[in-house]
Amino acid sequence: MDELQLYSDEYWMQEALKQARIAFEEGEIPVGAVVVVKNRIIAKAYNQTEKLTDVTAHAEILAITAASNALGSKYLPECRLYVTLEPCVMCAGAIYWAQLGELHYGAADPKRGFSRNGPDLLHPKTKVSNGLLQDNSRKLLQAFFNNLRN
Amino acid sequence: MDELQLYSDEYWMQEALKQARIAFEEGEIPVGAVVVVKNRIIAKAYNQTEKLTDVTAHAEILAITAASNALGSKYLPECRLYVTLEPCVMCAGAIYWAQLGELHYGAADPKRGFSRNGPDLLHPKTKVSNGLLQDNSRKLLQAFFNNLRN
Repeated sequence: MDELQLYSDEYWMQEALKQARIAFEEGEIPVGAVVVVKNRIIAKAYNQTEKLTDVTAHAEILAITAASNALGSKYLPECRLYVTLEPCVMCAGAIYWAQLGELHYGAADPKRGFSRNGPDLLHPKTKVSNGLLQDNSRKLLQAFFNNLRN
Repeated sequence: MDELQLYSDEYWMQEALKQARIAFEEGEIPVGAVVVVKNRIIAKAYNQTEKLTDVTAHAEILAITAASNALGSKYLPECRLYVTLEPCVMCAGAIYWAQLGELHYGAADPKRGFSRNGPDLLHPKTKVSNGLLQDNSRKLLQAFFNNLRN
């Protein structure tokens, strides 16, 4: 019998938003991510490009690396990634290679999001949903960029 | 006065091939990369996806992270990346974010290379060349995949 899913997608996106808020507090562009298997978070991460001085330190990349470490597997078909902002091309490429089972993202990113290059940057096996708690994500991003300007 | 470039692009690609050969010896898909500023290598890396159990551990990603660490800067406009195989979408995304000055890649990768998605995955400021020592790179890759099959 498959294990019952005890929490909603919204519940996990709230956890991703918690990560985004940590990024915000630390002066990073506020994007957060969690990786979930069944009813359990196996990895969580937030954008750390400033702290690590590294453009590759996006929340999704850090979360995928941590999830692979937790599971001892390069491939993550049983995993669900919840991320507060649409992944960029780099992160979509990582999601492709990891063959993530599901990608749930919050706010769209029309300028830098992967989907403007066509959805086929992702693996055909990866199920995608978007829009979950997007207003919360967008407000956090707007607050961050307003702070930067002031 | 600008510092004279004492070595050719081919010289640096030979250094990237050395990295690819280390990958080969370690049972990794043989791809190698170096990052050069003027006459100096500031970062070198080879594909370590097996050893690190991490799909994000491509040579280019590791090299960019190391180069940013060496220079203390997220952005690498003065850097030249030499990599033995055409970067994938993930790595092209990282090269985009880092605003690499130059990308030189050896063998084309028609299946997984970024350029099938259009060259605009890269930053407009990044100069690109390809084909340098491509036969050496391709032979190494073929030997690796022949070994796998036998």
